[in-house]
Amino acid sequence: MRAPGAATVIDGFRDECGVAAVCGHPEAANLVYLALYAMQHRGQESAGLVAADGERLRRHAGMGHVADVFTEDDLARLAGSSAIGHVRYGTAGGSSIDNAQPLVMEHRRGPVAVAHNGNLVNALTLREELEGAGSIFRCTSDTEVILHLVARSRAGSLVDAVAEALRRVEGAFSLVLQAADLTLAVRDPRGFRPLSIGRLPDGQPVIASESCAFDLIGARLERDLRPGELWICHADGREESLEPFEAAPSAACIFEYVYFSRPDSIVYGRPVGIVRSALGRELAREHPAEGDLVVPVPDSGVPAATGFAQESGIPFDFGLVRNHYVGRTFIEPAQSIRHFGVKVKLNPVRALIAGRRVVLVDDSLVRGTTMAKIVTMVRQAGAREVHVRISCPPTIAPCHYGIDTPRRAELIAARQPTDEIRAFIGAESLAYLSLEGLYRATAGTPRGAFCDACYTDDYPVQLVDGDAQREAMRRGRTIEEIRTTPRAPEGGGRQP
Amino acid sequence: MRAPGAATVIDGFRDECGVAAVCGHPEAANLVYLALYAMQHRGQESAGLVAADGERLRRHAGMGHVADVFTEDDLARLAGSSAIGHVRYGTAGGSSIDNAQPLVMEHRRGPVAVAHNGNLVNALTLREELEGAGSIFRCTSDTEVILHLVARSRAGSLVDAVAEALRRVEGAFSLVLQAADLTLAVRDPRGFRPLSIGRLPDGQPVIASESCAFDLIGARLERDLRPGELWICHADGREESLEPFEAAPSAACIFEYVYFSRPDSIVYGRPVGIVRSALGRELAREHPAEGDLVVPVPDSGVPAATGFAQESGIPFDFGLVRNHYVGRTFIEPAQSIRHFGVKVKLNPVRALIAGRRVVLVDDSLVRGTTMAKIVTMVRQAGAREVHVRISCPPTIAPCHYGIDTPRRAELIAARQPTDEIRAFIGAESLAYLSLEGLYRATAGTPRGAFCDACYTDDYPVQLVDGDAQREAMRRGRTIEEIRTTPRAPEGGGRQP
Amino acid sequence: MRAPGAATVIDGFRDECGVAAVCGHPEAANLVYLALYAMQHRGQESAGLVAADGERLRRHAGMGHVADVFTEDDLARLAGSSAIGHVRYGTAGGSSIDNAQPLVMEHRRGPVAVAHNGNLVNALTLREELEGAGSIFRCTSDTEVILHLVARSRAGSLVDAVAEALRRVEGAFSLVLQAADLTLAVRDPRGFRPLSIGRLPDGQPVIASESCAFDLIGARLERDLRPGELWICHADGREESLEPFEAAPSAACIFEYVYFSRPDSIVYGRPVGIVRSALGRELAREHPAEGDLVVPVPDSGVPAATGFAQESGIPFDFGLVRNHYVGRTFIEPAQSIRHFGVKVKLNPVRALIAGRRVVLVDDSLVRGTTMAKIVTMVRQAGAREVHVRISCPPTIAPCHYGIDTPRRAELIAARQPTDEIRAFIGAESLAYLSLEGLYRATAGTPRGAFCDACYTDDYPVQLVDGDAQREAMRRGRTIEEIRTTPRAPEGGGRQP
Amino acid sequence: MRAPGAATVIDGFRDECGVAAVCGHPEAANLVYLALYAMQHRGQESAGLVAADGERLRRHAGMGHVADVFTEDDLARLAGSSAIGHVRYGTAGGSSIDNAQPLVMEHRRGPVAVAHNGNLVNALTLREELEGAGSIFRCTSDTEVILHLVARSRAGSLVDAVAEALRRVEGAFSLVLQAADLTLAVRDPRGFRPLSIGRLPDGQPVIASESCAFDLIGARLERDLRPGELWICHADGREESLEPFEAAPSAACIFEYVYFSRPDSIVYGRPVGIVRSALGRELAREHPAEGDLVVPVPDSGVPAATGFAQESGIPFDFGLVRNHYVGRTFIEPAQSIRHFGVKVKLNPVRALIAGRRVVLVDDSLVRGTTMAKIVTMVRQAGAREVHVRISCPPTIAPCHYGIDTPRRAELIAARQPTDEIRAFIGAESLAYLSLEGLYRATAGTPRGAFCDACYTDDYPVQLVDGDAQREAMRRGRTIEEIRTTPRAPEGGGRQP
Repeated sequence: MRAPGAATVIDGFRDECGVAAVCGHPEAANLVYLALYAMQHRGQESAGLVAADGERLRRHAGMGHVADVFTEDDLARLAGSSAIGHVRYGTAGGSSIDNAQPLVMEHRRGPVAVAHNGNLVNALTLREELEGAGSIFRCTSDTEVILHLVARSRAGSLVDAVAEALRRVEGAFSLVLQAADLTLAVRDPRGFRPLSIGRLPDGQPVIASESCAFDLIGARLERDLRPGELWICHADGREESLEPFEAAPSAACIFEYVYFSRPDSIVYGRPVGIVRSALGRELAREHPAEGDLVVPVPDSGVPAATGFAQESGIPFDFGLVRNHYVGRTFIEPAQSIRHFGVKVKLNPVRALIAGRRVVLVDDSLVRGTTMAKIVTMVRQAGAREVHVRISCPPTIAPCHYGIDTPRRAELIAARQPTDEIRAFIGAESLAYLSLEGLYRATAGTPRGAFCDACYTDDYPVQLVDGDAQREAMRRGRTIEEIRTTPRAPEGGGRQP
Repeated sequence: MRAPGAATVIDGFRDECGVAAVCGHPEAANLVYLALYAMQHRGQESAGLVAADGERLRRHAGMGHVADVFTEDDLARLAGSSAIGHVRYGTAGGSSIDNAQPLVMEHRRGPVAVAHNGNLVNALTLREELEGAGSIFRCTSDTEVILHLVARSRAGSLVDAVAEALRRVEGAFSLVLQAADLTLAVRDPRGFRPLSIGRLPDGQPVIASESCAFDLIGARLERDLRPGELWICHADGREESLEPFEAAPSAACIFEYVYFSRPDSIVYGRPVGIVRSALGRELAREHPAEGDLVVPVPDSGVPAATGFAQESGIPFDFGLVRNHYVGRTFIEPAQSIRHFGVKVKLNPVRALIAGRRVVLVDDSLVRGTTMAKIVTMVRQAGAREVHVRISCPPTIAPCHYGIDTPRRAELIAARQPTDEIRAFIGAESLAYLSLEGLYRATAGTPRGAFCDACYTDDYPVQLVDGDAQREAMRRGRTIEEIRTTPRAPEGGGRQP
Repeated sequence: MRAPGAATVIDGFRDECGVAAVCGHPEAANLVYLALYAMQHRGQESAGLVAADGERLRRHAGMGHVADVFTEDDLARLAGSSAIGHVRYGTAGGSSIDNAQPLVMEHRRGPVAVAHNGNLVNALTLREELEGAGSIFRCTSDTEVILHLVARSRAGSLVDAVAEALRRVEGAFSLVLQAADLTLAVRDPRGFRPLSIGRLPDGQPVIASESCAFDLIGARLERDLRPGELWICHADGREESLEPFEAAPSAACIFEYVYFSRPDSIVYGRPVGIVRSALGRELAREHPAEGDLVVPVPDSGVPAATGFAQESGIPFDFGLVRNHYVGRTFIEPAQSIRHFGVKVKLNPVRALIAGRRVVLVDDSLVRGTTMAKIVTMVRQAGAREVHVRISCPPTIAPCHYGIDTPRRAELIAARQPTDEIRAFIGAESLAYLSLEGLYRATAGTPRGAFCDACYTDDYPVQLVDGDAQREAMRRGRTIEEIRTTPRAPEGGGRQP
Repeated sequence: MRAPGAATVIDGFRDECGVAAVCGHPEAANLVYLALYAMQHRGQESAGLVAADGERLRRHAGMGHVADVFTEDDLARLAGSSAIGHVRYGTAGGSSIDNAQPLVMEHRRGPVAVAHNGNLVNALTLREELEGAGSIFRCTSDTEVILHLVARSRAGSLVDAVAEALRRVEGAFSLVLQAADLTLAVRDPRGFRPLSIGRLPDGQPVIASESCAFDLIGARLERDLRPGELWICHADGREESLEPFEAAPSAACIFEYVYFSRPDSIVYGRPVGIVRSALGRELAREHPAEGDLVVPVPDSGVPAATGFAQESGIPFDFGLVRNHYVGRTFIEPAQSIRHFGVKVKLNPVRALIAGRRVVLVDDSLVRGTTMAKIVTMVRQAGAREVHVRISCPPTIAPCHYGIDTPRRAELIAARQPTDEIRAFIGAESLAYLSLEGLYRATAGTPRGAFCDACYTDDYPVQLVDGDAQREAMRRGRTIEEIRTTPRAPEGGGRQP
């Protein structure tokens, strides 16, 4: 039986993607590899790298974690002083090596590679139009639509063709592009997804979705790309910054703070860990709990729980222990063990919990099923009361801009008032941080600055693709690639 | 050190491709798998299958031999009552899973898969034109050009679009195409490459490059597709035959008789083994040798040697023993062992050879380097004289229609007269079958019926693609895919 | 370049082993698999399982993590109602599939399998004696010595033979043994290593090194095996408890509390997490620090840091973020990045640390090299002062009883006084918990009850094997198995 | 469905083993690798090598073909100037990496490795005795018995211990042994299995089961080891030859001529191919046939068919074509195709066969089932008559000395007279070569010189092991190793 991945055991959101680029460094591919390694949390399904030596692009990509996809030999063959890379999140149907990025094409003006974080809202509409005109698509990613638009552009230069292509797409894109002689980074006009520029000690620019990538390679964060900025670094080191799009209101994803980014990253100018523990403090102020012990749902609930404990003065302890060896493949017992799926990942510490009034803090509550199991488990370990506190508002709407949320019908808060959810999960009390509290924790950013559609159902950009198109894509295309999935290729468990 | 593949050890031609199709049978994929298995000699680099269930196509392809690419589970998942398949030859640069056929595309009119045997003479010209118009190419095969032409056609039906596309290409194509609801087979107007129709016991049609595929699956050979015939089998079993091309003189590849096809196949209406042993008899008549023993260069020289022995009355024996376990991966000794590369594959039997005048019979002599080593080896085993007889005319020109010959400059007979070649290989005598003898052995087919360009430098269709284009393609495209090459898995690939 | 494993990046101790057994349950192998999964932290090098169906033993073992070693099919083939299992720690030279346990032998009285946690102090002496008498050894583990002693015993029953064999060995052994018709568990007379009995809901007994294994499979902890207890469960469910050894003073390993066991396990009757946070509280009392922020070295320093913060009243926060995706194989950059090795695993959060007086809490300090890098890193992130607190006494002596400590010469506290160590790691202050504090945190256990040799150099049982024997074994035997090392299979190899 | 291996498709004998050794050459391991490669036909299940550098032995072994088991890196790590190697045949139950040879042990006098071709007739009896005395066996091979006898010997030197051990075993052994400072080769007193000494160009000795191994590495055959000879090559190059056994009548396996050895080997002083074609000539004299065409069953029937054709004057042709790509893994069609199993391997050429009286020549007829299918297939291809000629006498008794024959009950000639066999296979006539003819073809060797038990039921050495012991071993031991069987890697294994 396939293992319940993280997203199954602890229901919630799947990670999105991460991109990176390094320009003008003799070890470009190696540094991008490290940057991807630091951003592994943004996508565990596939990883890929393209390096440019001024003339040719070389690409290597594969399914799995960064450390598994690349060998030292692979990196050595990715010669050249510029490189881009991508880690990709996992989705059910579209999990395929063909979707692994960067995507490449031979273009009239030379080879081009693109790696993309985000989601377009008119990708399927454009795809139908392009297929109607005779374009052949190779995979199901939005990114390929961009490549085809670039290929068909009549613009005079590659940069112009890219700008022209991107003016036709709508939605979220933080992307990096590598040509033979230039590297390009661009963030959509609303700046849905983060994208930052850093500097290596010798001044070479680095691009990454999150600043933790800079820390690992010894670079420092310089600034975020501005929404709508198209930044170019030429092979000779010259950098340019263009603004090819019409201005639009900012809509940076607030969920990066709540859940996605690493706590040691600085996102939109603020340290994520600090924001996250402020979320816990705001939560403690808004929704105090009569408790003896603050217990985080590890690992993602830890920073908010720390803040909650600090603000409330209630002692903090790890009443739930997480098994960090939990992998993707796990064989379940045939017999029914109660709450087995959750126990593989979390085990309650009876000695801490028994007889206590426990305040469970987590950073999100999506379907509610996992939290129900955790509450039961904590109660079976002897908790006298269980109070659940969530460090963000109720999630009531799916994301269209690159975060793989469940469909609206599966979001418990989209269907039920909080008290019913409380009953469903079996807690003595349940409270969410308010939207105002969320904004306060980000140090007083005005409401308009972020995309908070998942909490408000108020989308900055509407979907263009119709339901029929989306349904067709969801059902899968009419060609299915059958891939043999050998286990343990050279089989770990292989004999001498 | 990488093993010298067959083509390296015994210099010569590389195999081309083989295609197959089965329509209207519940085990279509399984039968096509067996057909490919029977045609494994036509391509060892990759194998692929596409099955159609009336609505969707399912594809599985991989690098290596048919038996290694498909598992029982893969075949079970290739559901549907129609299927096409392909085995592909190996080339130096273009060896890549992306080039593995059948190629597929999502088309306005549904999914389409194509598998192609042959070579187009205007593929690069068309490709440049298509890329200029914004088409994105995924691999380097000629076949993808056909797909793009079909995708861009404005014709009303898929069959019309295919016909329109194929009218634009020039050169050799014996191809099979699978759509959701029909299977199509087509042979170019000159009929360069073979393609036959067979029938299963219950009447379902089968298509294959060679009739040995029919034998294995219990089908019988019905007839060859006519040059220029476009044959369709609809999902309801209805068959149609169209002639969408202008008529052209026949140019069936005569090399199928000399080298490529299996001896148990019937090609262009004649049993290949019979033709091949007739080549030996003609050779004995044209160029008798004063010898004590006829020794074939195994395995390909055996039928001609049998014929030579029968006609000449000289005893036949296996004076060279072939190691059938020779694989692609072979670690050479660091010390120099004389003629090592040849010895891995062939070992002389001193007891048969010593003191004898040996007549060595082979079916081709391309670069001459291997034959030089064999002659030396046979002489060292004690042969008193060595007379070499080749069962075809001197190879003086490369093939443009699907056979992977060395470049003209590497063909020894294109540069040197026979006597110099004789001196180079160190034989007492050397003789080739005449072109007339070759035609006689095919039971008197008139000269015009075959393409014999490799022996005559007289090409039925001229190359359209220019040298610059070919050179560009030869140098490789500007994007290189770096593939991790694990050892064993494809290492299995063992030559016959 | 090979990746720095956990033990390399953060210098310290390597994990030891874990054993488990389940008797009389139709899913015995599956439950042992889960028990091993829960104890993955006790050994990541290899995993193995033996199941008994009353007549035969079936075994499967492999290198790597539990989830990578076993497929569902493997488990299905491990038929039978009793099973034992083992996870093994990694050592440099002896890492080999031949050393993977359980070890098996065909015995006069039927097949026998043994899995062992601990280390014998006279294994090499016995081995030399056995080899001298003609026994052939297959691997380098202590456990094989036990098997040979059992094989050569003249005792009338298997249980008597086992008891006789174990009376000859000295040192630490918590072992499980599986015969065709009985399961046996035994703990050495001093009880060096933990071993507990649990019960499944239907009453079947379960054996495991740590109680967290019981939690995952729905069993409850019943009691520890007594030191010197030999417990037997027959195929018919009958349980027996023997005491075949002379009594000896208790010497339970105190390091299980400090570092090894999972915090949610109950070891020697006390919850590990509770003990660990008490260590932090004792430490805060003994060695208060003038600090603004308590920062744990994650993950192992977290519980003690929590206790330290609670006791001291200094705020607690995650000033070092750990990358949980860090795996075994990691390609380092060619250029020198400062503190790269540590950064792969830990990244300081400048926003929390800058300008603060940081109290760094960790659970051990072995060589000191990693802590030196962490202190520098924390200081570079802006810390005004760095005070290091270690939640155990200085480690001055290596373990002889199953924990893979560095040699004495590598233990910094064996060579240098605390103030020199402080200077070496570059901290403003450094303090260790006292031995008395350590005992106090275990709720007042009297000193004699534990083995604390690593802190006191006072060994309960002396080494019998001489230095020459140990040196010979350290150099390796004279036969070396060359194993092809495939690259990261599914390289699941994921660290906690 | 698992593929029918060679032995299944064409029923018959399985290959036995091959051994090799090289002494005093800097590339010893590489040369042994090549020697094994040349003897691949003697065993395709596993391959192994041990090299000695004067102090240590290094070993690498694996399942599958030589080219798949060793990488260049493996060979590089097998340092040292002496080496031995082994290829092993496949058996149903005992196919296991643990049985892969050479076997090694740490001995009082240093490390020892042994590789063995042959079968002992008292192995199980000795094993029971050794297990009773406390020896632990690791695998099921006879060879391990020899290792244990050496380990328990009290003799003063390793050579004496080996001689003492071998005096206790009975049956067939041609073995090579590698210690740190000497290489040893020995042939049992009756010389059941071949073993030869060759010389490299610089004089170093080479040992191999067959001389074809010498040809590939540029060595020349010097002589056979005498039956009962124990030959030693010391690290300093000194060679010795001892005769530690009582003399016994010669019993060289005559089956090496009939089937096993490569035709280009010189076995027992005679070229195998010459003997084999003489078998065909004798057969033609003894049992002439009224036929139009001599057709060999390829590949093994070819030499005898050549001889038959020469003697009879009937034309020879390849009326059955063999698919050399046939591998072990083959997925059969679900539908019933007539004679499918045979067709995968052999295809009749109707054009040669139709209307002819065919004389089918093969080198053995064991169960008769395959020949029955071939005769039917040939008849369906139009043969007017089918006359079967077998180039050896009826096989009526199983081999006890190292050849894996079917059990007596499965040997059709042990149960039925020739005419009934003829009726079973459906031929117009059937004839076997007589025992006298077989001896005549070996150039008049007197009858006593060979072991011909398979044709005469007259065994030179009786089985000591009882039926019960053999049955116990056949049923398998009571410990079963569950091995994950990954697909492709060993799937590559392709038959000649």
